[in-house]
Amino acid sequence: MNLILLDEQELNERGEVRLTGRRAEHIRTVLQGRSGQSLWVGKVNGPLGTGMIKQVDESGVQLRCVFGGEVPALPRVDLLLAMPRPKVMKRLWASLAAMGIGRLVITNAQKVERYYFDSHVLESSFYEPLLREGLEQAADTRIPEVHICRQLKPLVEDELTTWIPDAVRLVSDPSAQQRVSDVIPPHIENRVLVAVGPEGGWSAYELDLFQAHGFHAVGMGPRTLRTDTACVAMLALISDALTAHAGSKD
Amino acid sequence: MNLILLDEQELNERGEVRLTGRRAEHIRTVLQGRSGQSLWVGKVNGPLGTGMIKQVDESGVQLRCVFGGEVPALPRVDLLLAMPRPKVMKRLWASLAAMGIGRLVITNAQKVERYYFDSHVLESSFYEPLLREGLEQAADTRIPEVHICRQLKPLVEDELTTWIPDAVRLVSDPSAQQRVSDVIPPHIENRVLVAVGPEGGWSAYELDLFQAHGFHAVGMGPRTLRTDTACVAMLALISDALTAHAGSKD
Repeated sequence: MNLILLDEQELNERGEVRLTGRRAEHIRTVLQGRSGQSLWVGKVNGPLGTGMIKQVDESGVQLRCVFGGEVPALPRVDLLLAMPRPKVMKRLWASLAAMGIGRLVITNAQKVERYYFDSHVLESSFYEPLLREGLEQAADTRIPEVHICRQLKPLVEDELTTWIPDAVRLVSDPSAQQRVSDVIPPHIENRVLVAVGPEGGWSAYELDLFQAHGFHAVGMGPRTLRTDTACVAMLALISDALTAHAGSKD
Repeated sequence: MNLILLDEQELNERGEVRLTGRRAEHIRTVLQGRSGQSLWVGKVNGPLGTGMIKQVDESGVQLRCVFGGEVPALPRVDLLLAMPRPKVMKRLWASLAAMGIGRLVITNAQKVERYYFDSHVLESSFYEPLLREGLEQAADTRIPEVHICRQLKPLVEDELTTWIPDAVRLVSDPSAQQRVSDVIPPHIENRVLVAVGPEGGWSAYELDLFQAHGFHAVGMGPRTLRTDTACVAMLALISDALTAHAGSKD
């Protein structure tokens, strides 16, 4: 936890908050917090700041917080993900928030089993704490927006254009020869939307649908990766391509 | 499982093997294997091939295998890893094998807790099945060599040069401005050795030690990642830089 994430409504008008449970436990045992010590804090979808420990004991931790003005920028990548096995999805929530995505759209695909969508790992009461855990790790405050859309066709044909206009569109396809850096043009300011398929891959029909709607197929070499590993690898490559281009602009 | 991994000594002189347990279960239930069907197989540290199902029932699966001549190339990346929390290390084994590394050297660092090394996750009986699982996912046969070296200093000053001569050396440092693709020269045929630190990062002393021995500090942007996420992201960037250069050579 490199940041203590707070909800606006937890803070009183003097910027004070009394923590109990997981965050208090972390401050006491891992950070070995003492009265007078300062910690990184952040408001959910708001600015970063520092929290000074006023009091710490078995019953909880009292912080007085001061926040900066600027809210961290929304990560420039959105992920369209074919629902993986629930066991894999469970592991993914925190990693995705840590890597940084603006939106996560979970969808169906031919090689997705229907019962995956009945899993409790898609309930916000289950995943929201995991998204927060990922943000606390990465020291960010922007919680990814989560959409669950079980119909791939209207999503690709229609809805995505409304939600995420003007994005550079990529679809992960192990057989593609083009790489991420080949299709992200230099100096773009657009968002990047990347579609990552199920364990068995997108079907030929699905790949055609994506390509007919402006998605560039990109590969990551010959090794077949599990969805969670593939997502982290893909997000690392996209974020690197966006940073490289930002850097070379100066 | 995109490959059924077999040990040389499991096969009889006609290339036949009788599987029970995990692999048989996978063939029966996930692949829904039928008599006459062919599957991808591979010999541990040996060639890939195909296995034709001769018989499949509750008690097991009988395969007749034919192997190609060529052994997959050893992945060109070696990883020097400060021992993470055992819970994180447990998750890492299969991912590392799936991403592809030649050697894994696990070492100590200032911010590593001593008791991490007492964990059963460092016993070969624990990790070897996980490495195999990662290879079966990635359809590779080359099991990473694992070394556990609790002394960082002699390792960096001496042993690494003997084990892995002529490697391009990188050390992951969140504060570094240089990126992986800045320090991997075009068209190299060398191996790449990358050092990934503990959750709290390498100490200043450790970073100096690495840099004094030819390691280039590389960063991956401002987000602090958990060791397992950071390793996957770093290996994706290195493998991409090596592939990009190989491609542009033609």
